[in-house]
Amino acid sequence: MNKGRLEAFSDGVIAIIITIMVLEMKVPAGHDVGALLPLWPVFLSYVLSYVYLGIYWNNHHHMLHATRHISGRVLWANLHLLFWLSLVPFVTGWMGESHFAPRPMALYGAVLLMAAVAYLILLNSILRTEGPDSVLARAVGRDKKGKLSPLLYVLAIGAAFVSPALSGALYATVALIWVIPDRRIERVLADGHATGSPKPQ
Amino acid sequence: MNKGRLEAFSDGVIAIIITIMVLEMKVPAGHDVGALLPLWPVFLSYVLSYVYLGIYWNNHHHMLHATRHISGRVLWANLHLLFWLSLVPFVTGWMGESHFAPRPMALYGAVLLMAAVAYLILLNSILRTEGPDSVLARAVGRDKKGKLSPLLYVLAIGAAFVSPALSGALYATVALIWVIPDRRIERVLADGHATGSPKPQ
Amino acid sequence: MNKGRLEAFSDGVIAIIITIMVLEMKVPAGHDVGALLPLWPVFLSYVLSYVYLGIYWNNHHHMLHATRHISGRVLWANLHLLFWLSLVPFVTGWMGESHFAPRPMALYGAVLLMAAVAYLILLNSILRTEGPDSVLARAVGRDKKGKLSPLLYVLAIGAAFVSPALSGALYATVALIWVIPDRRIERVLADGHATGSPKPQ
Amino acid sequence: MNKGRLEAFSDGVIAIIITIMVLEMKVPAGHDVGALLPLWPVFLSYVLSYVYLGIYWNNHHHMLHATRHISGRVLWANLHLLFWLSLVPFVTGWMGESHFAPRPMALYGAVLLMAAVAYLILLNSILRTEGPDSVLARAVGRDKKGKLSPLLYVLAIGAAFVSPALSGALYATVALIWVIPDRRIERVLADGHATGSPKPQ
Repeated sequence: MNKGRLEAFSDGVIAIIITIMVLEMKVPAGHDVGALLPLWPVFLSYVLSYVYLGIYWNNHHHMLHATRHISGRVLWANLHLLFWLSLVPFVTGWMGESHFAPRPMALYGAVLLMAAVAYLILLNSILRTEGPDSVLARAVGRDKKGKLSPLLYVLAIGAAFVSPALSGALYATVALIWVIPDRRIERVLADGHATGSPKPQ
Repeated sequence: MNKGRLEAFSDGVIAIIITIMVLEMKVPAGHDVGALLPLWPVFLSYVLSYVYLGIYWNNHHHMLHATRHISGRVLWANLHLLFWLSLVPFVTGWMGESHFAPRPMALYGAVLLMAAVAYLILLNSILRTEGPDSVLARAVGRDKKGKLSPLLYVLAIGAAFVSPALSGALYATVALIWVIPDRRIERVLADGHATGSPKPQ
Repeated sequence: MNKGRLEAFSDGVIAIIITIMVLEMKVPAGHDVGALLPLWPVFLSYVLSYVYLGIYWNNHHHMLHATRHISGRVLWANLHLLFWLSLVPFVTGWMGESHFAPRPMALYGAVLLMAAVAYLILLNSILRTEGPDSVLARAVGRDKKGKLSPLLYVLAIGAAFVSPALSGALYATVALIWVIPDRRIERVLADGHATGSPKPQ
Repeated sequence: MNKGRLEAFSDGVIAIIITIMVLEMKVPAGHDVGALLPLWPVFLSYVLSYVYLGIYWNNHHHMLHATRHISGRVLWANLHLLFWLSLVPFVTGWMGESHFAPRPMALYGAVLLMAAVAYLILLNSILRTEGPDSVLARAVGRDKKGKLSPLLYVLAIGAAFVSPALSGALYATVALIWVIPDRRIERVLADGHATGSPKPQ
């Protein structure tokens, strides 16, 4: 019943986060390519975070699509998730402007880790009211990505102090495993057995 | 009938307020932990204001859920509430950057107080058209928190000039009494007598 | 049929304009009242523009409520109105930071004038498809405020070069005549003959 | 079924992009006309980009209006389009602040070109599920503008290095051919044979 407003508010917050992030790319003073080139780490960080926020929006969208009841607990669990996502522009900016220095890269992973934990808390809050036989619960049963992601974030945080490049590769890998197979699962579902919600984190 | 658009506009404004607040956390120049540490008062202020705006969004959501008619007076009372909420990023930023100095802490409380007053005005504007026997009016009957909060804000404003720490503790207390028992009330309502709207400010 | 999305987009743009305007109020460096006082012209400008944007949102809301068909012409007339409203934060900031200097005050009026003209164009675009017997057309028949406002803006632009205080008083007057009688008209309509849309610019 | 949320999210992002773009117009330090005049290239760039984003919002609106199914592929194709649009404020700011220097003008065209390509990808993703006999597919059959625009962008990018004025004229031309004839087509459709969706990119 109140689901529409929860979705609208979450959409608004994610839309603003994704858009103000680009404000970190300050207009350069010079007018040639040389003035633009130093911005590449900021741009690359922006692309990565844009993909992450896109994944969260997509998954949030699917999760709530399969949700019927919104409790007070769910409202707060959702605000908790949005809190960690709201820190993404800050850590993205720091990572880019530091040219992928170890500590900014580790902090980036820490915020992603907290967002992933917040997503799991939100999912569990919803499952509490939906029950173990709900569409959402069945879809979550085979949720390997939701368990793998936090592990890879922890690895990437550790790797940041040894090799920032390896850390960045791990962040890109997590993003890719979320973007690519989602499409495959969905196609399978659409082709064959069209039961269950495809993509709950 | 027009309620949807009032909700959508309020959601938009609150979503933007909550998100631009994080822009006060400027990306530090250095790349190590020492560059990050001085940001803790700004971060702490952000967390507090985020919770407050979350409470307002939640309460606004519940209040309008139990509302049937939107008058011109309600439209303006709602804009008046959003006005004071729109000042939250400014006072949050000042409080954080001043490392919790007395005057910024008092001004923070003054804006919260005005927002609480604006909320009461909005509530009364709605009750005028809803009538004394409406779902909303019955739920408001036992509204102790709505009367306690302004009192605690006044105390906190006074305390800011004596002990900013005490003032901050009072702000955190008000936030907690709104976040925690709401959930309890709701559970009680869901378990037993499921009549009335649970959480009207 | 497409009305919902036009409303949502307009709400989004107005919500963002109203909120980013507050970003012009920069957090002061000092921690006492002396650091805050120089901000009063910026704050006063913000209050005035907030009321104006509230009026536009209210009127837009009522006008579209009485609209049934959205043509391509209406989409562009709406974007044209939003364009002038999007310049309000800029002229508000300039007016406030210049402490109400003549030219910024005149430019403020020029943008308000263009917004009022854009509103009339939008209204006419809608009336073209709604027809002369529509609810909206009948409500517009007695539209005195819509014709008085541009005149007062022109006066205020001229007055800016003689007495900025007079100019400001005129801007405040226009805002007041929009906020106050709207409520009266609505009450009259609600009491007696409940025909026609109350508040079309 | 999920279309509403996709539209709402896209509206939110486009509304924010269009609005934060105006933040590039920094409030000048002086209080007279001389302080305002140097802003004209930034203002002109803003007007051009505002029109472009208005065109995209309009076309997006019409395209989705004629869409019935939203697949996972469409969600990502839509995010891909919004990504390139999110870079518009950056390239607009650079173009304006450089007073239409060659490289910023070329980069502006490159982002517009990528957005146009992203729009075509989104259109094809939708047509995949809609099928060759859908309303959208028939409307796209006579889509000359969608093919002409990328060509003109490429010309404008090349022209930027020879004559920035010619490049700017080409950008303005593309904007005009999208704004003007759309209205004509629509009128024709409304007058005579009211079949097919009028304006798909």
